[in-house]
Amino acid sequence: MQFSSSLLENAVSEFAKLPGIGKKTALRLVLHLLKQDTGDVSNFSEVIARMRSEIKFCQRCYNVADADICSICANSMRKQEIICVVESIRDVIAIESTQQFNGTYHVLGGVISPLDGIGPDQLNIESLVNRIQKETTAELIFALNPTIQGDTTIYYIQKKLSPGSGGQLPQLRITTIARGIAFGGELEYADEMTLARSLQNRLPVESYVASK
Amino acid sequence: MQFSSSLLENAVSEFAKLPGIGKKTALRLVLHLLKQDTGDVSNFSEVIARMRSEIKFCQRCYNVADADICSICANSMRKQEIICVVESIRDVIAIESTQQFNGTYHVLGGVISPLDGIGPDQLNIESLVNRIQKETTAELIFALNPTIQGDTTIYYIQKKLSPGSGGQLPQLRITTIARGIAFGGELEYADEMTLARSLQNRLPVESYVASK
Repeated sequence: MQFSSSLLENAVSEFAKLPGIGKKTALRLVLHLLKQDTGDVSNFSEVIARMRSEIKFCQRCYNVADADICSICANSMRKQEIICVVESIRDVIAIESTQQFNGTYHVLGGVISPLDGIGPDQLNIESLVNRIQKETTAELIFALNPTIQGDTTIYYIQKKLSPGSGGQLPQLRITTIARGIAFGGELEYADEMTLARSLQNRLPVESYVASK
Repeated sequence: MQFSSSLLENAVSEFAKLPGIGKKTALRLVLHLLKQDTGDVSNFSEVIARMRSEIKFCQRCYNVADADICSICANSMRKQEIICVVESIRDVIAIESTQQFNGTYHVLGGVISPLDGIGPDQLNIESLVNRIQKETTAELIFALNPTIQGDTTIYYIQKKLSPGSGGQLPQLRITTIARGIAFGGELEYADEMTLARSLQNRLPVESYVASK
């Protein structure tokens, strides 16, 4: 693309660095901003810069926060003894949007994936184990993506917490979110693994009806 | 969506104001920026803000410019006596990318569209007529989108320049870009209007071969 203004060209190439945004989309976005008030655009740019420079990560759960401790960890109305282990901040937002979970989180920052060079030390696992040993955690819920890496991570953390390692407290319950046929999904298109698991982990009808 | 950080939430809603970007995409972009260096993100935000506050519009052709006159108008290598009339800056970029045009532009800023409340006075038409009368323009090429509004605009400007209005210089040639079957297009899927026009405006084979 040929630009007659280097200011425009620089703005387009900055936008085009964002994931999933090509040169044409970047140009569309920049030309949109060009039509807005200068104040609105400077507000846009300020909010973005402030977000990056001022955002913090919760010292307890590694979720994004405005302070040292995030609003979920600081909320005494939530069950602090229940920890939901997730891969990323995005998963926290997804679970929060269901408004069905009233515990706390622990953001691992990824899953164990030797092929990508990610071992347990690059993740917030040590801090999770320390947190469980220090706090009176009652339940650990794994909400990781159903991949081999996710399962490996669950296995690793569970081992770390097993009585043999001297870690697990007797009262700690470890669970994982249910795998099965999604609502709106069709049986015939489900993969065999999911279908098999959903048969194995079948539920009594009364509990299914009650949860709806 | 539920956010545990208002900094994050504000950044997401700023991105979601952009056209074609929903809340989920906005979140993806913000989380991407969160992973970048603070310096890179502040550079991103600075480039956007500077673009909006410092960009100028060429006083001659209304294209975007870094100075009072854009780089195309200021370029003495380009044929200043040929003016290509386009709707928007985006069209200038599209034509420049072909590297086939060596004249100048005039950006109307839209087309006449009474239904949208856009009359000739809201567009850069007066300045085009003045420009043609002042400069020794040899050719005016209309490169507007083939819509009723585009055709109306061509008709209006042409009328303004016709000898009756005392406007047109005797040597001014007025043309419009060719309508026809696009390269890669298939005859059977072309609409009747385009196919009919492409038959009417058929070209001698030698000129077709020469232009390839």
